[in-house]
Amino acid sequence: MPYRAPLESFQLILDHVVGYDDVARTGRFAEAGSETVQAVMAEAGRLCEDVIAPTNRVGDQNPAVLENGVVRTAPGFKDAYRAIAEGGWVSSSADPAHGGMGLPITLTTAVNEMMSAANMSLQTGTLMTQGQIEALEHHASDAIKDLYLPRLISGEWAGTMNLTEPQAGSDVGALSTRAEDNGDGTYAITGQKIYITWGDHDMADNVCHLVLARIPGAPAGTKGISLFLVPKFIPDADGNPGTRNDLRVVSLEKKMGTHGCPTCVMSYEGATGWLVGPEQGGMRAMFTMMNNARLGVGAQGVGVAEAAAQAAIAWAAERKQGKSPTGTIDGHADVRRMLAEMRAETFTARSIALACAVAIDMQTATGDAEWAARAALLTPIAKAFGTDTGIAVSQLGIQVHGGMGYIEETGAAQFLRDVRVTAIYEGTNGIQAMDLVGRKLADGGEAAFALLDEIEACAESVRHDHPTLAEPVWQAAETLRETTEALVARDAADRQAGAVAYLRAFARVLGGYFHLKAAMARPDGPEARLAAFYITRMLPEHTGLCAQARAASDTVMALSPDDLAA
Amino acid sequence: MPYRAPLESFQLILDHVVGYDDVARTGRFAEAGSETVQAVMAEAGRLCEDVIAPTNRVGDQNPAVLENGVVRTAPGFKDAYRAIAEGGWVSSSADPAHGGMGLPITLTTAVNEMMSAANMSLQTGTLMTQGQIEALEHHASDAIKDLYLPRLISGEWAGTMNLTEPQAGSDVGALSTRAEDNGDGTYAITGQKIYITWGDHDMADNVCHLVLARIPGAPAGTKGISLFLVPKFIPDADGNPGTRNDLRVVSLEKKMGTHGCPTCVMSYEGATGWLVGPEQGGMRAMFTMMNNARLGVGAQGVGVAEAAAQAAIAWAAERKQGKSPTGTIDGHADVRRMLAEMRAETFTARSIALACAVAIDMQTATGDAEWAARAALLTPIAKAFGTDTGIAVSQLGIQVHGGMGYIEETGAAQFLRDVRVTAIYEGTNGIQAMDLVGRKLADGGEAAFALLDEIEACAESVRHDHPTLAEPVWQAAETLRETTEALVARDAADRQAGAVAYLRAFARVLGGYFHLKAAMARPDGPEARLAAFYITRMLPEHTGLCAQARAASDTVMALSPDDLAA
Repeated sequence: MPYRAPLESFQLILDHVVGYDDVARTGRFAEAGSETVQAVMAEAGRLCEDVIAPTNRVGDQNPAVLENGVVRTAPGFKDAYRAIAEGGWVSSSADPAHGGMGLPITLTTAVNEMMSAANMSLQTGTLMTQGQIEALEHHASDAIKDLYLPRLISGEWAGTMNLTEPQAGSDVGALSTRAEDNGDGTYAITGQKIYITWGDHDMADNVCHLVLARIPGAPAGTKGISLFLVPKFIPDADGNPGTRNDLRVVSLEKKMGTHGCPTCVMSYEGATGWLVGPEQGGMRAMFTMMNNARLGVGAQGVGVAEAAAQAAIAWAAERKQGKSPTGTIDGHADVRRMLAEMRAETFTARSIALACAVAIDMQTATGDAEWAARAALLTPIAKAFGTDTGIAVSQLGIQVHGGMGYIEETGAAQFLRDVRVTAIYEGTNGIQAMDLVGRKLADGGEAAFALLDEIEACAESVRHDHPTLAEPVWQAAETLRETTEALVARDAADRQAGAVAYLRAFARVLGGYFHLKAAMARPDGPEARLAAFYITRMLPEHTGLCAQARAASDTVMALSPDDLAA
Repeated sequence: MPYRAPLESFQLILDHVVGYDDVARTGRFAEAGSETVQAVMAEAGRLCEDVIAPTNRVGDQNPAVLENGVVRTAPGFKDAYRAIAEGGWVSSSADPAHGGMGLPITLTTAVNEMMSAANMSLQTGTLMTQGQIEALEHHASDAIKDLYLPRLISGEWAGTMNLTEPQAGSDVGALSTRAEDNGDGTYAITGQKIYITWGDHDMADNVCHLVLARIPGAPAGTKGISLFLVPKFIPDADGNPGTRNDLRVVSLEKKMGTHGCPTCVMSYEGATGWLVGPEQGGMRAMFTMMNNARLGVGAQGVGVAEAAAQAAIAWAAERKQGKSPTGTIDGHADVRRMLAEMRAETFTARSIALACAVAIDMQTATGDAEWAARAALLTPIAKAFGTDTGIAVSQLGIQVHGGMGYIEETGAAQFLRDVRVTAIYEGTNGIQAMDLVGRKLADGGEAAFALLDEIEACAESVRHDHPTLAEPVWQAAETLRETTEALVARDAADRQAGAVAYLRAFARVLGGYFHLKAAMARPDGPEARLAAFYITRMLPEHTGLCAQARAASDTVMALSPDDLAA
């Protein structure tokens, strides 16, 4: 089941669903018009289809190993990574001043999705480097920028993010890694970090770690944290990898999936590091990195969903079983229903991710606060719903495969095992939902209501000609509006028990909106039929979700730990 | 995280939720009164806690292997299996005439759940033997019964089910294994079978296969199929394992989970078999076996859900992260919400399984057609919802564990990898839903309406004192009634696209009913708080599901395979 890059879907969504033409009309992205975008995506798509996708099963079957302190990757990974680097795909949005292509995040998001579909384990490495590039662009000194950025952007060197410690997972402020001033402009970094994705490998000449640490005397909690760049090899005077730094990989985790991706326990033992941004400005710099990484992880979910959907659809079109109108299992109503859900959900998640990316690009290009608010609102939804969709679609993919879905050789199970982590890392999906009902509704719901206004206006404009599609979308937006009003009227803490349901309800309503727009663009196409499926059968889920989101937290908190343990 | 048998939950459900006292009042099960039941469950529970549960991780890490044609199981499995056999737990419902305990299926279901929680891979073996015992009790000749049943019931010998062939998965009628009459009362069986659970192993002295095959000249499809008993070793005159039969394990599948359980490709090469039941009566005999196996698989889902819930609750009570009222992560509202969902869903699935078992026992004891109809209605729901719950609760368990949930050492991922197969085997959950909206509504909905009458009567009886619990349950039952009416008014084929949603809606409403009854039994206990949680926050899901169930299939079937592949 070879992967095919979904270029037509991207084009439809960019042109008719998320308003990419706004981005292309800005001065900043004037060179990224529709034709350029199509050409770029086609080129990246070919790379994903021909070079990257063939490495996916290999990575699952040949987990990365730690040998004599060095991580060795699966056969073929190094070549695939080199092809990514040579194509400029490590970070196509990076600043041209340091060798980047300066393309919109919207394009990078589409490319990230395709690369994740082809091999999520491998793509996670480029995603880490993307985040590092962005953090350095925003926060590093010119000297660091000049030395590191060209090498990271070209893919010669790779980047990692080091946040988590054994006793400080989601609670980053509890970290204990310390950074002592060497008095020569460098710091000595000492501590242990866990879950370090691509913490070491043999695909790049140097691995550069961004490490959160506390300078002695700094305040407790997140406020006292600073960010350091700690390379595996300290660059020499010519900018080549020189002396080995005092850091090492202690062990690799044995994980449910992403076997191709080394997840490292790292030990820093007085390693030399350079401060990035001001002292105690670590969290701000890290948030730059994490914010876009959240969208990137959402795109990973979409990519795996697309790959799983393609595999299941191809399987169902070949597999004969029972009497069916098509002669194959895709003629059975319930199999057809599962395939349709896979397609409809993947479309929804992709549209949300690209809508978020468009908002980020518009914010970058215009500095407009409304675009910033839109981007901030959509980021946790893109992350959580994208990854939940990756999981749900992979689950359906296994089910469509029947018994063969449980056997590893079909690859259906790998999709689920790989994508499962995306709901956890880069802030668990529960934390995304907290962000949505907390910080993102702290404006009294203004950004949310602006988006709901837009949805309702769209539904109203086509209501007359397409009542069966437009009416339920309008109604769902209205129910979500009432739910949002109920939440903002409530104490922030009291919103949390319904946060996950609220985020999912929001995604459901956005799905209705985006499917409606696609149907209007292609009223006689498969898009309109998929929209009818989604709006009739999946959109109604929002009522139960809104009920759960509106419910006060008392029924949750009344259940004590003792009650639950009983 | 040691497993603890949920004896109190069983007792509450048997006494106050599913009306087990009806069973104990019958002549057939007069000896299985409440005290006996408690004693039996406590004994089985200790075995599961002390002997079986410690083998669960071992089995995952030491997959069964095929060596020189013989399957070797993980360290400790043989001893644990012997303890199961010696305790009489292979099949506690087996006929005392052949050495069984003759206990109600209700008890066997509870024991199966506990054994699955402790080690699902291992328990699958006993479940296969249970099914074989039942098929032989109902359909075999006295000679076969006398020879095989005592040895199967004692666990000396083990049983398997051989239905599936490479080109005949869910479509059993397409099988091509043939059985040629040897003219001496035996048949020569030739063909290949796949997905044979525990098809060979080193835990019992003989492995007896029930094999579906076609006698030459028999009609095509399911009608022409006969059932044969084909032992690995042909019993000698003393009933001891004698000559090796002409069958072999070709290979073991590499699966996503249940690594401890060998899933075999079997080859029968003129193997000697004995007819069970009449010629061409194979499907009827197989359905006997499959019907109760469906409930058994549902109980596997519940068992894994319970184990995953216990592990997550224990983890969340230990894990410190962020500021929380309890000091541990179970103080965070969203974590508490996840733990509550795990508990509420497990309770619902357990109650449905036990209600189904009670109906089977009442049917056995009374021969009453209404009990038979109730059992038939609940069986696909118990199977599909039980296993969906196993998956959903395991998913939540991983999420509660955060990053550690994705690392294999915590065991959280194993629960999901193991239980995932239960939604596929013994009839996929889609097929269960087809059965529900097809055969089980073929009575015009009579059995469904009878159950809804019971639910509404219960809700009405407590409505005055407990309106916030009783009202939503009554309303949900009424919505499900209207949905059922809409389905029975429709062509059976047109029900299928909404079948899965209908089954889930039914389970949701049953959950409301059972939680309500538990709350009435313990109005000041954790059961009442859990009921309030479920009814307020989870029961509302039924509205979206009912909408999907009621929707005609046109929006599904309008999407052609070409549309989906686009």
